[in-house]
Amino acid sequence: MKKKILFNAFDMNTAVHQSQGLWRHPNDRSGEYKSIKYWQNLARKLEEGMFDGLFLADVTGIYDVYGSNADAALRNAVQVPSNDPFLIVPPMADVTKHLGFGITGSLTYEPPYTFARKMSTLDHLTNGRVGWNIVTGYLNSAAKAAGATSQTGHDTRYEIAEEYMEIMYKLWEGCWEDDAVERNRETGIYVNPSKVHPVEHDGTYFRLNGIHLSEPSPQRTPVLYQAGASSKGQTFAGRHAECVFASSPTKKVLTSTVKKLRAATQEQGRSGDSIAIFGMMTLIVGGTDAQAQEKLAEYRKYASHEGALTLMSGWSGIDFSSCDPNEPVKHIKNDSMQTAIDRFTISDPNRVWTVGEVAEHIAVGGSGPLIVGSAETVANELQQWVEETASMDSILLMLLRRTPSTTS
Amino acid sequence: MKKKILFNAFDMNTAVHQSQGLWRHPNDRSGEYKSIKYWQNLARKLEEGMFDGLFLADVTGIYDVYGSNADAALRNAVQVPSNDPFLIVPPMADVTKHLGFGITGSLTYEPPYTFARKMSTLDHLTNGRVGWNIVTGYLNSAAKAAGATSQTGHDTRYEIAEEYMEIMYKLWEGCWEDDAVERNRETGIYVNPSKVHPVEHDGTYFRLNGIHLSEPSPQRTPVLYQAGASSKGQTFAGRHAECVFASSPTKKVLTSTVKKLRAATQEQGRSGDSIAIFGMMTLIVGGTDAQAQEKLAEYRKYASHEGALTLMSGWSGIDFSSCDPNEPVKHIKNDSMQTAIDRFTISDPNRVWTVGEVAEHIAVGGSGPLIVGSAETVANELQQWVEETASMDSILLMLLRRTPSTTS
Repeated sequence: MKKKILFNAFDMNTAVHQSQGLWRHPNDRSGEYKSIKYWQNLARKLEEGMFDGLFLADVTGIYDVYGSNADAALRNAVQVPSNDPFLIVPPMADVTKHLGFGITGSLTYEPPYTFARKMSTLDHLTNGRVGWNIVTGYLNSAAKAAGATSQTGHDTRYEIAEEYMEIMYKLWEGCWEDDAVERNRETGIYVNPSKVHPVEHDGTYFRLNGIHLSEPSPQRTPVLYQAGASSKGQTFAGRHAECVFASSPTKKVLTSTVKKLRAATQEQGRSGDSIAIFGMMTLIVGGTDAQAQEKLAEYRKYASHEGALTLMSGWSGIDFSSCDPNEPVKHIKNDSMQTAIDRFTISDPNRVWTVGEVAEHIAVGGSGPLIVGSAETVANELQQWVEETASMDSILLMLLRRTPSTTS
Repeated sequence: MKKKILFNAFDMNTAVHQSQGLWRHPNDRSGEYKSIKYWQNLARKLEEGMFDGLFLADVTGIYDVYGSNADAALRNAVQVPSNDPFLIVPPMADVTKHLGFGITGSLTYEPPYTFARKMSTLDHLTNGRVGWNIVTGYLNSAAKAAGATSQTGHDTRYEIAEEYMEIMYKLWEGCWEDDAVERNRETGIYVNPSKVHPVEHDGTYFRLNGIHLSEPSPQRTPVLYQAGASSKGQTFAGRHAECVFASSPTKKVLTSTVKKLRAATQEQGRSGDSIAIFGMMTLIVGGTDAQAQEKLAEYRKYASHEGALTLMSGWSGIDFSSCDPNEPVKHIKNDSMQTAIDRFTISDPNRVWTVGEVAEHIAVGGSGPLIVGSAETVANELQQWVEETASMDSILLMLLRRTPSTTS
């Protein structure tokens, strides 16, 4: 029995997302991320390629753990400079018909009332093709930029997130009845006031008293994404998410993550299948397996290990700037982060990864698996991932988009 | 000596902006405000008509003073439902080349750090065609929606705004040097860290420590608009604004406003001419003067006095729901509001406006003057406004856009 696989592309409104150093490739066009045309071309290509969605990451801070400053992040353009992800979606929606858009939005930096309107507006403009990746922020630098001395504790962030979501549902689902907008030229009634119900919320972290500003959009609540890998994150996903990212370097680790997520969903009284789990991976496709390997070798020539270690440091909270590349990477106990490094070190007890090897992998494949080969090889491998992880039903493709073949 | 007149169109991402009731016109298309194509058609038309800019108002609250509830605002769709103004700008920029975009953004509801990036992103995407109308919020309902019991005091709001602007300039102008982005494929240096200077701000209302996330955009600081008519507002405009709105029903009142604004600008050490002052007005043009008057009469058949009074109540803070239409409108002493009604009552000491007359005018002309006639009549009248107000050099045209002739 073949499962239908959903495909999301993974990108960010920035010069260098995850593939560190590849902007140096002679045909690279990463500098065009500031233009509307760049994103429209990408969206058109994805739609032609029958992708289900484009997922846009966002980080409102700097990766300044490496070397305890922002120098390496800047030198390698590690997700900085970066621009707002929401603003590129309407022009992409304008040139596509069925492509979905998942946008990362941190609920730490925008009040619920205006954020709810922003998402509703996008849902109107895209005609119901928008999703929201709910994040609570994980970089200290982002918290400092917003005026805090450090970020709010991990558990508190999820408590805040729960209350934020409660308000979102009230605004999106509970405020305007389906037929509240009458727009009747005869009676002169545009909106029937008896079908609009003000939201009153008096909680621990938020107070709100008002009418949602937007009329009901095609989806009302956008598709909800979640990526938190911690137990709190999984509970949150079980309650709210329709799509979850689970980046794991091996099928075994992914299978275990998938099981936990299905269980967390069932604990919240939902069917385990109500979540689509996206395993993150990078594909490099060539005419033959050998040609694909050559392509990989060519890409690796441009890889920046410093950039990769800067990412790793930001993800793990550990400064890798003083590490020897031949040093083995240790398993990091840190529930509050998406510890990409954890995933390497626990994936295969028989293999000891060195700092340099992880850096080399991340620079081209990010923190997920890298699949290299002919179209047939890659397709077979994808099928195996889907079958062997039992319940994984979706794939998130990391884009090495800055190179000429934008989706390979 | 002829002055060059700048033209801005005035609109809002909502069903009914100011022209109350005109959505009932048989050819009206106000319901399409939720679509990308609607805004692109408007932008194209404005560019063809050689407009300098499109100015987008925004209100993050409900006009609930009239009758002490939101019923009349909803019934007449008085600026509700409304959507986010920022998200319609990129698709409009995509189909135009020189049209500018002035967007209303309240600094009360978004932290400086992410707001600065949002504006920089728009400046990149529009290739330097974006402006920001700085507002501090004036509806109690908006403050309540954001969790306050009522809005912050007027003077405090301007203190907060001053500090907010200080941070904006630091992020936009002081953080990235012009040549910080090297993007050198040979050296592997994308950004030169020594040319990026973290912003440290420890003020009364905000703390911030971080690097502006966006690289320098074409304008860096967007064109700054301001509309506050109070003395605090004029001081603020004198310090920051490049464009100011001054809606006044007579040339005499506008002349006085213009003088005050020029003086406020000079007090801040800037040339009085460094501000472009936009007088708000509505034009109705016909083949002949008589035909234009017929058009006005036709529009007035659809005008909603209840909608107009709902606007007036929101602007003035006075509930007009119990007023007799024949009652004279009294001069309202309220420095903290843009008292549209003030402008009527003080404009001509010899005329006593009734509540009904003001409502009738506002429903088609908003709070500015209404100029009706053939193209020649209207052009002459515009020229007189410019010459007789001495220093007024710009005109903001209210769009009766929902009717077939979108810019008439």
